[in-house]
Amino acid sequence: MSACLCLVFLFFTSFAEATYYTRGGFHHLSSSLRQIKKASSKSKPELPFETRYFPQNLDHFSFRPESYKVFHQKYLINRRFWRKGGPIFVYTGNEGDIDWFASNTGFMSDIAPKFQALLVFIEHRFYGESTPFGKKSPKSAETLGYLNSQQALADYAVLIRSLKQNLSSEASPVVVFGGSYGGMLAAWFRLKYPHIAIGALASSAPILHFDNIVPLTSFYDAISQDFKDASVNCFKVIKRSWEELEAVSNMKQGLPELSKKFRTCKGLHSIYTARDWLMSAFVYTAMVNYATAANFMAPLPGYPVEQMCKIIDGFPRGSNNLDRAFAAASLYYNYSGSKKCFEIEQPTDDHGLDGWGWQACTEMVMPMSCSNQSMFPPYENDYEAFQEQCMGKYGVKPRPHWITTEFGGKRIETVLRRFGSNIIFSNGMQDPWSRGGVLKNISSSIIALVTKKGAHHSDLRAATKDDPEWLKEQRTQEVTIIEQWITEYYRDLREEE
Amino acid sequence: MSACLCLVFLFFTSFAEATYYTRGGFHHLSSSLRQIKKASSKSKPELPFETRYFPQNLDHFSFRPESYKVFHQKYLINRRFWRKGGPIFVYTGNEGDIDWFASNTGFMSDIAPKFQALLVFIEHRFYGESTPFGKKSPKSAETLGYLNSQQALADYAVLIRSLKQNLSSEASPVVVFGGSYGGMLAAWFRLKYPHIAIGALASSAPILHFDNIVPLTSFYDAISQDFKDASVNCFKVIKRSWEELEAVSNMKQGLPELSKKFRTCKGLHSIYTARDWLMSAFVYTAMVNYATAANFMAPLPGYPVEQMCKIIDGFPRGSNNLDRAFAAASLYYNYSGSKKCFEIEQPTDDHGLDGWGWQACTEMVMPMSCSNQSMFPPYENDYEAFQEQCMGKYGVKPRPHWITTEFGGKRIETVLRRFGSNIIFSNGMQDPWSRGGVLKNISSSIIALVTKKGAHHSDLRAATKDDPEWLKEQRTQEVTIIEQWITEYYRDLREEE
Repeated sequence: MSACLCLVFLFFTSFAEATYYTRGGFHHLSSSLRQIKKASSKSKPELPFETRYFPQNLDHFSFRPESYKVFHQKYLINRRFWRKGGPIFVYTGNEGDIDWFASNTGFMSDIAPKFQALLVFIEHRFYGESTPFGKKSPKSAETLGYLNSQQALADYAVLIRSLKQNLSSEASPVVVFGGSYGGMLAAWFRLKYPHIAIGALASSAPILHFDNIVPLTSFYDAISQDFKDASVNCFKVIKRSWEELEAVSNMKQGLPELSKKFRTCKGLHSIYTARDWLMSAFVYTAMVNYATAANFMAPLPGYPVEQMCKIIDGFPRGSNNLDRAFAAASLYYNYSGSKKCFEIEQPTDDHGLDGWGWQACTEMVMPMSCSNQSMFPPYENDYEAFQEQCMGKYGVKPRPHWITTEFGGKRIETVLRRFGSNIIFSNGMQDPWSRGGVLKNISSSIIALVTKKGAHHSDLRAATKDDPEWLKEQRTQEVTIIEQWITEYYRDLREEE
Repeated sequence: MSACLCLVFLFFTSFAEATYYTRGGFHHLSSSLRQIKKASSKSKPELPFETRYFPQNLDHFSFRPESYKVFHQKYLINRRFWRKGGPIFVYTGNEGDIDWFASNTGFMSDIAPKFQALLVFIEHRFYGESTPFGKKSPKSAETLGYLNSQQALADYAVLIRSLKQNLSSEASPVVVFGGSYGGMLAAWFRLKYPHIAIGALASSAPILHFDNIVPLTSFYDAISQDFKDASVNCFKVIKRSWEELEAVSNMKQGLPELSKKFRTCKGLHSIYTARDWLMSAFVYTAMVNYATAANFMAPLPGYPVEQMCKIIDGFPRGSNNLDRAFAAASLYYNYSGSKKCFEIEQPTDDHGLDGWGWQACTEMVMPMSCSNQSMFPPYENDYEAFQEQCMGKYGVKPRPHWITTEFGGKRIETVLRRFGSNIIFSNGMQDPWSRGGVLKNISSSIIALVTKKGAHHSDLRAATKDDPEWLKEQRTQEVTIIEQWITEYYRDLREEE
């Protein structure tokens, strides 16, 4: 096997063992959540929400007998701050248990009192408890076929409309919020359902990461830039470490040697899992770069990439590059220092994320490559191989142009310059996904809030006393804009009467 | 049976025999087309178009194995006036053979040379030749389930994108046109796919005829107003005729008597078919009120309602009201004067319209009532009965709130005041469907062009030398606005480069 081995590549070549890494990158969030979960003695975070279930149609876009099958969609609601008639803040759930998104989107709870807003977090179909065919049903294209973003958006539309009716508060303005894939959904929801949501805060939503709109190398290039910005030496060490990894494993007794070096709980069977494991540490760390102590990676508040690079740079001159890279990765996987060994080949998934592999094989087709300039092993995207993998695993053929046909994205500035309103696209440029986001204002009300620093939807996390100024400022701007939308809405409403 | 018997009512009570009348009213157009067809010796109009077929996915919104079934969607194309890079004018086909819409939408051909535009008419799935399961497949919910407006819009999006690619003219601006249900589709297409169409001319599109947005009585009230405007006496005669109809049929030998009076080819079996037949004449005549000689009802150019009323008013004082009503209806059904008898109980459908009954039973739920003030027999809409009919006929449960959930419509002025752009809603107030249309400007680029006179999408028909000033003026405004959209688009395109 050649040296081309970016994370996405794993999706193509070692699918079975590496699904853990390959869910389009969106499980940085989930990955962080996994850390919390492991750190916590409780199985789920305790949230100030009431849990409810809404009877939802399986298929909104056809009227076959099966379309009418009803499943129960989970949602969380908090009425504590709400005055009737006041705004409704809805989180458009993404690929996982809604509890985890609720506990990691403290921003909404933080600002709810100011707006006297109702809080609602809706779980995405086929994740968490919202599984139309039950958790243990066979995962075939026949059942998973109903898992996609348009059906999810329609779920949100139907649920919100019904909820407002039940609350006898049909004139309440709805603002949708989402991060990562949830941010895409929030933006698309405003575009497709402007009659239901008056605006959207789409945080770290890489809606341009499709169909070659942004270069395929942008994701890994951005991570590389993060490390280079922290330390050029650090970048170089990581870039050189892959050859050393290969050299070790090419040795006689290479895999046992590598297992020892990487302190694995069980002997390694493949160099590739070890490589994935290393790469993931850098990818995820870049994505949570900036991390607040209150949220995750507790001993790594501030800028984890810098801390990783400090470790790498702290080694004596001439040290082995692979040892340094491993030490840096250990910081991510063992920030509490309590781990005796690493379970590198046992990826687990207990956050209801099973569906992302399916989504990535159908509509969420975000191919990536690694350029020679990145700190990762070079890799040229191989679409044919990807397609074969999807066919093999799910029996499904990807529709790589569907997202841009359904939601647009190409030449977005021109299209939305004279169409649509009230969307905030927020991005922190240290987040590798930011390169697929909307980074420039499109119109007077389709706004890009970009910070030079900032990780994957940092702005949606709960405020802490340690938050830096740029983050405070970004959140203040968001609140100001949302306030404008709501004020304008109530003014329009009064004029209407 | 009581006296409640508006057209829509027939849908509920004499479904089997009266499906002819009950396709949500949209087949006025088709009805007129039927007249042309009968008048013509050829089976299809000769059109200056090339016929093509596009391989289309059965289901855009799910990824089950069946979703990937391919059917061939028919479309017509005319490149005669086009210069490469120039605009593409697309008609978003509605419920019937696309040939008929192409031959009745002369406006697009009329203006194509000025714009050097490519003309494309796309057939709606499940109509005409674009039948995914073949023309003779069983009409079950299992197959018809894929017939709906969202799938149709997605078809248009996929086809247009592919067409532009094949023409190597991806920067060409697309403007969509449609009348009646096709007008709804055009407006919704611009709202849902702004990245594919830069603007829409939605003629006589009753997008507010759902979910009680406009009063249920508006349609029949509007027709009544048309007749009252032509002649108060005419209105009164028609209003009184229903009792006389009932009186005749209550006579011993009533049905044979009525058959004789109505010159039926075969003896009537029911008073209701006779009543439907009469009502339809008034409904359709109001809808084609204004009719151009070039288009249909050849001996009735100008304002057919006025001509009907002249006949009614021309009877000697004291004449029987039913006789007068019949004479007026004869003008509609036998404008050429060549018919020896009327086939009242033999509705036929040879325009590929079968699907509308299904659409009306699933998403296109447009309930109607007849008020006491109308000239029609009073009728209170009975939703339960409607639902039962749909269940009985198709085994499907209507989703009466779905259209407004998916496309909006409630409080549309407020919603679209700050969202969206480049839609013309044109309506002639003599068209009964106009009451469900957008009749006021919503924003500087979501425009209502309303004429006091004017029938169901008169503006889309080919211009004739006899056209009145109001119609010429309306078309001129449309051309001016479309020109603005295109100019603006090319300006934006240049700035982009």
